Amino acid sequence: MSDIPNLDQVKAYLIDLQNELIAALEVADTRAKFIQQDYPTPIGGIARPRVLENGLYIEKAAVQFTHGRGNSLPPAATARNPELKGRPYEAASMSIIVHPLNPYAPTMHANLRFFLVQSKQPFWYFGGGFDLTPYYGFTEDAIHWHATAKKAADRHYDQFKQNCDEYFYITHRKEARGIGGIFFDDWTEGGFRESFKLIQSIGNAIPHAYLPILERRKNTKYSHRERSWQLYRRGRYVEFNLAIDRGTKYGLQSGRRIESVLASLPPLAAWKYDYSPAEGSPEEALLNDYLTPKNWLAQKK
Amino acid sequence: MSDIPNLDQVKAYLIDLQNELIAALEVADTRAKFIQQDYPTPIGGIARPRVLENGLYIEKAAVQFTHGRGNSLPPAATARNPELKGRPYEAASMSIIVHPLNPYAPTMHANLRFFLVQSKQPFWYFGGGFDLTPYYGFTEDAIHWHATAKKAADRHYDQFKQNCDEYFYITHRKEARGIGGIFFDDWTEGGFRESFKLIQSIGNAIPHAYLPILERRKNTKYSHRERSWQLYRRGRYVEFNLAIDRGTKYGLQSGRRIESVLASLPPLAAWKYDYSPAEGSPEEALLNDYLTPKNWLAQKK
Repeated sequence: MSDIPNLDQVKAYLIDLQNELIAALEVADTRAKFIQQDYPTPIGGIARPRVLENGLYIEKAAVQFTHGRGNSLPPAATARNPELKGRPYEAASMSIIVHPLNPYAPTMHANLRFFLVQSKQPFWYFGGGFDLTPYYGFTEDAIHWHATAKKAADRHYDQFKQNCDEYFYITHRKEARGIGGIFFDDWTEGGFRESFKLIQSIGNAIPHAYLPILERRKNTKYSHRERSWQLYRRGRYVEFNLAIDRGTKYGLQSGRRIESVLASLPPLAAWKYDYSPAEGSPEEALLNDYLTPKNWLAQKK
Repeated sequence: MSDIPNLDQVKAYLIDLQNELIAALEVADTRAKFIQQDYPTPIGGIARPRVLENGLYIEKAAVQFTHGRGNSLPPAATARNPELKGRPYEAASMSIIVHPLNPYAPTMHANLRFFLVQSKQPFWYFGGGFDLTPYYGFTEDAIHWHATAKKAADRHYDQFKQNCDEYFYITHRKEARGIGGIFFDDWTEGGFRESFKLIQSIGNAIPHAYLPILERRKNTKYSHRERSWQLYRRGRYVEFNLAIDRGTKYGLQSGRRIESVLASLPPLAAWKYDYSPAEGSPEEALLNDYLTPKNWLAQKK
């Protein structure tokens, strides 16, 4: 494998990973299947959105691959690289989001992306990561999630974890979105071959990071109380995605298929005015003990 | 009344109007009461949020007055007036949003605001308007709404209606948010006294525009189908408010109390992947016949 950035290689890997994740989620759900339909994107790209709704355990999941091509970079993509404004580009990305039905099972999100501007000196980078958003805190889940992340990101874990805590922060609420994970952007360290290996290591870890947690929590008994709390907290997810997330802003500006861009939104979300959970409740414990960045790998189960 | 811009006069009017609207909505609901609590805002301002939840007919309503003072204008407020950046300012605003429980009753939103930068030559303007978002279309409701708007805005109706159609547009969906109404901003025409009279005419029209429609629809029989459609369409409302609305962006940036800024969000909202209503259904008729700007006053009931 040469060190020249190769979009086809990245594309093949991300589509394989997408297929693997879809198969694993259908097994986990036991009942529902993903809607599978491909769409061409402008100038020879392709979108492969895969969405599952109303499953037995998964209320909604979206696992999407997109190979986008454009003649002119939109503003959201060039804010940090103004010299690229207006140039043709290619991007390959795979994203996954799972909104389980059971409030004791966390929402998970992961994304891997490769960006390339072809020229004599190609400009390229990788970005991505994965983060977890529980509705009820379980230390053993958080430790498993972060231990898997650390194994995958290896010596970059500490930096990527900090990036993640910083990125998935709901500024206007002064709240973390979840318990974090790893996040990186503009990544070129060691050249294409080395970076792509890291991306594969992280991508391959996604099912191992999440599926054991989903299995452990998907049959937990719950009542109206837990469901209400889940819907309320999903409102925060909506707030982050629509008002803060750079990826969503880019999607809304770039003219991508809107149902793909917004497939990450939860199936149902609630807003309650001026609500705080009761003192000493597990709902309050989520806010106080889990939605505050910490070194999970130093915690006791 | 002099023609010097007078914040106290505007404030007194908006608080009276807020009280009137609260009383009228409690009568319409017959059961629920507004939560009433005042909060000081920085440098001697005040927020009077009033929120009603889980009523018999009103699932959520927020009627809020805010007198805000600041030492330095935030970016969202100065985009169109860059020379004001960083100057101290005052703003008085009253906003109302009603999310009825019955899917046949439309969501309504109205806002009136006055902005003032004190100096030897005071800089000031009024803004505001009202718009209606039905889930099922009724021509007689749309005609009543727009006829009331026209009576209130008089010779400015055509311009304000066009402003409203342009402002309440969900760019990424290529859809109108609702059937419009009136909207204006940076309004100083005729000086303070004349402008304030227009604002009062529009403010006084709010209950007459909405309450007859709410009364007419609040007891309509409905089933799961209509409720699902309402929750799905409320998702669009969330998308507009969080991703597009200038007022919300300003609120999120200016450090205002976040529960007030986001009190407009619906109590419950849904997203369904790649959903379209059935051909020939009343849900499709909403999209085709109502969410496209038209001259409602030329329609037949």
